[in-house]
Amino acid sequence: MRLVGLGVGPGDPELLTLAGLRELKAAGRVFVPVMSTEEEGRSEAVVRAHLPVDAPIERLVFALNDDVRGSQQRRNELWDAAGTRVAEHLREKGGSAVFATIGDPMIYSTFTYLAATVRRLLPEVEVVLSPGITAMQAAASTAGLHLVEGVESLTLVPVTREVTGLRAALRGGGTVVAYKGGRRLDELKAEIVAAGALDRSVYAEHLGTDRARVLPLSDVDESVAAPYLSTVVILPPRGGRGEQL
Amino acid sequence: MRLVGLGVGPGDPELLTLAGLRELKAAGRVFVPVMSTEEEGRSEAVVRAHLPVDAPIERLVFALNDDVRGSQQRRNELWDAAGTRVAEHLREKGGSAVFATIGDPMIYSTFTYLAATVRRLLPEVEVVLSPGITAMQAAASTAGLHLVEGVESLTLVPVTREVTGLRAALRGGGTVVAYKGGRRLDELKAEIVAAGALDRSVYAEHLGTDRARVLPLSDVDESVAAPYLSTVVILPPRGGRGEQL
Repeated sequence: MRLVGLGVGPGDPELLTLAGLRELKAAGRVFVPVMSTEEEGRSEAVVRAHLPVDAPIERLVFALNDDVRGSQQRRNELWDAAGTRVAEHLREKGGSAVFATIGDPMIYSTFTYLAATVRRLLPEVEVVLSPGITAMQAAASTAGLHLVEGVESLTLVPVTREVTGLRAALRGGGTVVAYKGGRRLDELKAEIVAAGALDRSVYAEHLGTDRARVLPLSDVDESVAAPYLSTVVILPPRGGRGEQL
Repeated sequence: MRLVGLGVGPGDPELLTLAGLRELKAAGRVFVPVMSTEEEGRSEAVVRAHLPVDAPIERLVFALNDDVRGSQQRRNELWDAAGTRVAEHLREKGGSAVFATIGDPMIYSTFTYLAATVRRLLPEVEVVLSPGITAMQAAASTAGLHLVEGVESLTLVPVTREVTGLRAALRGGGTVVAYKGGRRLDELKAEIVAAGALDRSVYAEHLGTDRARVLPLSDVDESVAAPYLSTVVILPPRGGRGEQL
């Protein structure tokens, strides 16, 4: 029996890989993370775009949007309940179960915790990781940005908890991408202004959906609440063609 | 007329996206980077897996494997020749030309330089960026690694020129990925040993091909020449489930 952590990409169904499509079609059950069983999540929307209406899709509740400083007990209980349900399905039916996650299952994904839980309950399970296109790639392709060239480094920092990691990354040079900073966009923007990088920064939200917005960070009103899953790309200063080599 | 920078992924044809497959099929011409017109490159191999034998595929020579300290004049001449050829094709035939690149066109890709050149010669061209799965994702999925969890940062450093960027990244904490370090694997390994991270490091080469090898860095003989495009993933120390949040 196999548990596939499948990255479905940023939200656009066309950014699924061919390997991912094959896994979806071969799965005995496709589990999708949601915030509440009442609503369709973003990965479910991608999955449904590729499967028949009666496909075996099952919603699992996670604390997806909870503040990182929120209840660890609530997170743990949801991980345990979801892992128990997946293990139960695999024990009963065998075959291949897919857990479909937005982006990539190896990069800041709920799948990390689900896989750990299922492995503990069902040590014989084979865990497969099927990569997906990330939000930073979707933001860059929409904005027409080359993320990294030559010897530039790329640093991806989650700013859920605090923005000090961003400050250090900006000091280190190279390209910096800030994930999940919607709730502290004011602090984020202040750090970027202090680093003199505002004119090299791009803001993106609702990537891969009809509501996608990608614009210069300088045009964003940081006093307005932004979605949790927003992305900010800060490019390094650049010379002409090939000068970063 | 459009020029599509298409990321075909790490080498496995199944890791192409559905959007990518559609671009390939709609293209009037598919350009692929090679080191010499006599040999099939890695992106050509992926492209050919999806197109009929008589598909319009054209090889463009780039200094792909040249040492970063090698001739900038040679690089410039090849960029100019390739850009001129692509602009000539688009001026003559119009439509959509695809430039197929291993990995992602926005991440350390030759496409950056090609797009700059074509834009200069043909300002009216629409440049489209179609993202692809990167080598770090292929390495992690093959090795079964969760790249980043919770508040960990991810730093991607090319070590073509020197390893000092790697040293700084290791000091910064989080997950570190070293690209293109095959030619200085001895120095790379020494830095990782000095940082006390050898037992958290994984080495990968020839990803996405039949010759792919992914193994603990401690099992790699650094005195043996490694391919230029090798990847090393160094994980941070981790606690139990969710302790990185």
